[in-house]
Amino acid sequence: MSETAIHPVVLCGGSGTRLWPRSRATKPKPFLPLVGTGTLFEATLDRCPPSAGFAAPIVVTGTAHLEHVEAQWPAGVGGEVIVEPSARNTAAAIALAALRLPEDAVMLVCPSDHHIADRSAFQRAALAAAELAREGWLVSFGIEAKAPETGFGYLQRGEAIGDLGFKVARFVEKPDLDRARQFLADGGYAWNGGIFAFRVGTFLAELAAHRPAIAAQARAAVAEGHSDGSRFYPGADAFARIESESVDYAVMENTARAAMVPADMGWSDIGNWDALLVARDRDEEGNSVTGTADLVGCRNVLIETDGPRVSAIGLEDVVIVVDGDEVLVTTRAGAQLVGKLSGAVNQ
Amino acid sequence: MSETAIHPVVLCGGSGTRLWPRSRATKPKPFLPLVGTGTLFEATLDRCPPSAGFAAPIVVTGTAHLEHVEAQWPAGVGGEVIVEPSARNTAAAIALAALRLPEDAVMLVCPSDHHIADRSAFQRAALAAAELAREGWLVSFGIEAKAPETGFGYLQRGEAIGDLGFKVARFVEKPDLDRARQFLADGGYAWNGGIFAFRVGTFLAELAAHRPAIAAQARAAVAEGHSDGSRFYPGADAFARIESESVDYAVMENTARAAMVPADMGWSDIGNWDALLVARDRDEEGNSVTGTADLVGCRNVLIETDGPRVSAIGLEDVVIVVDGDEVLVTTRAGAQLVGKLSGAVNQ
Repeated sequence: MSETAIHPVVLCGGSGTRLWPRSRATKPKPFLPLVGTGTLFEATLDRCPPSAGFAAPIVVTGTAHLEHVEAQWPAGVGGEVIVEPSARNTAAAIALAALRLPEDAVMLVCPSDHHIADRSAFQRAALAAAELAREGWLVSFGIEAKAPETGFGYLQRGEAIGDLGFKVARFVEKPDLDRARQFLADGGYAWNGGIFAFRVGTFLAELAAHRPAIAAQARAAVAEGHSDGSRFYPGADAFARIESESVDYAVMENTARAAMVPADMGWSDIGNWDALLVARDRDEEGNSVTGTADLVGCRNVLIETDGPRVSAIGLEDVVIVVDGDEVLVTTRAGAQLVGKLSGAVNQ
Repeated sequence: MSETAIHPVVLCGGSGTRLWPRSRATKPKPFLPLVGTGTLFEATLDRCPPSAGFAAPIVVTGTAHLEHVEAQWPAGVGGEVIVEPSARNTAAAIALAALRLPEDAVMLVCPSDHHIADRSAFQRAALAAAELAREGWLVSFGIEAKAPETGFGYLQRGEAIGDLGFKVARFVEKPDLDRARQFLADGGYAWNGGIFAFRVGTFLAELAAHRPAIAAQARAAVAEGHSDGSRFYPGADAFARIESESVDYAVMENTARAAMVPADMGWSDIGNWDALLVARDRDEEGNSVTGTADLVGCRNVLIETDGPRVSAIGLEDVVIVVDGDEVLVTTRAGAQLVGKLSGAVNQ
């Protein structure tokens, strides 16, 4: 590992309900083979190899998902799992990881439940972001906005920093549709995909400046923690006191050193079944099938079944998911409501 | 039982694929609770009670379905099951039943897989048909045509026979859509629902006149048959020689004594999942659910599940059936193609 290696910090928190019933509380989205052959978690590790300048990963997860993380950890990769006793959002998770690394290391914070089609574009953006991070910037990936999405936060591009990226002029919360359309027309806005590059020392200093309590409690949780080799357990009492807050609120929206690198890399947060259909390889009729199915006169239909055969006739823009004791059938437009179904809420 | 009682002859043949996967070769449509609380077979027996002038039923079925017939036979009803060693269509089945009855008995031939919403209207039509049958007519129920259906045969009404019914001017095979529309506009056509009233002696004489071989072989099969009390087994060798032909082709289209009684009785042959949705009680949004389901923003959706919960969002005019290892999702318009699915064909 070179001294300038980038340390992937992979966040495996949350359970999510929007890909129910395939995704369940006991087996959430990162650990499912949703696009291609591997799981989203496996793909996240796989796109950060030593050959592209990455160090061994640090994965931050909860006790509930530890089993999945370790089962899907590739042999020989090394690295560490930080096991959180409970969920405390991203500011705390990133702080723990930072405190396990040297001050001058650069870390790349990666959600584990996104799909990135263009691996090379990701790695180029990571190198640019890492270079800005070494210069003291707190760097977000600015995902090229492809549609007026109302489910994402946006970054407004400020002045250029050399040819590596831009200052962030403004962070914008999830906009309504009119504003999202304006952002898209304006062209100076990008999606905030939750991928960040930080120099460890800079991040911890900014966290201490803007959220001193979180910084101090995270430091105490690490000081009271213990390692059993590949797993690190933060001290439970100190950890339990950490305020739950996102890194966006706690640090990014407050720091004067926010930057962004543009990233056009076939990114999707696979935020619902419709987004998954878009990310998938499809046949000539636009259908995507996983499992046994018989389609007659269907277009733009996604079928996922873990056993029973699904026979479908005459459907257009419909998603069918069979998973154990649950069957979901929704229009693509209705896919955004899946998380509100009683099955998803009460799983 | 009065001497003028009507003898129900209930035909339980065929397996059918159009309500797959709920209907399977091993448990076909008559034996399923599709509308209301009982099965179609139970409802067929139930609408022919002694109080309305009916004798104990004769049921003609195959060995494969005998178990279902006997399991669903109401206690205390009496009657006989004729067990066919193989399927030989309706001419043979009706001939066997006729030969188990006295010459002057009137029989009412009833398919066991239709739904009739208006039981009183059925019984009134049966009484009228029986009276015409006693006068020597071979009587079809002429089901009031409600739509330009291309899946049924039609009866053209001829001159009136008193105030009981009409001569049949012509039998028409399943028409194309243009002709079906003409029939509906004309008003002088009714659907041939496969319900018939015959005096036994008249039927056997007409069968002998038009299909002497079938008549002779049926007579031999009954002569060589044996009864074990409630079941009658035709002689297998003679039965195997009977030509397979429908009563429509063999007798009704050839006889000079074809008559019809009009019947407007909420009839449906439940010919596919769409027809079942129409026959069902539905909620305000037009949905009908059997089993556990969670519907959000759905209209005119039929859900049948034998176990798994079905969650449906935003669907309109869609049928969802979950049955063991098979899941069917079809548009209502596509329901007519269900029988051609590989699951239905290869069950």
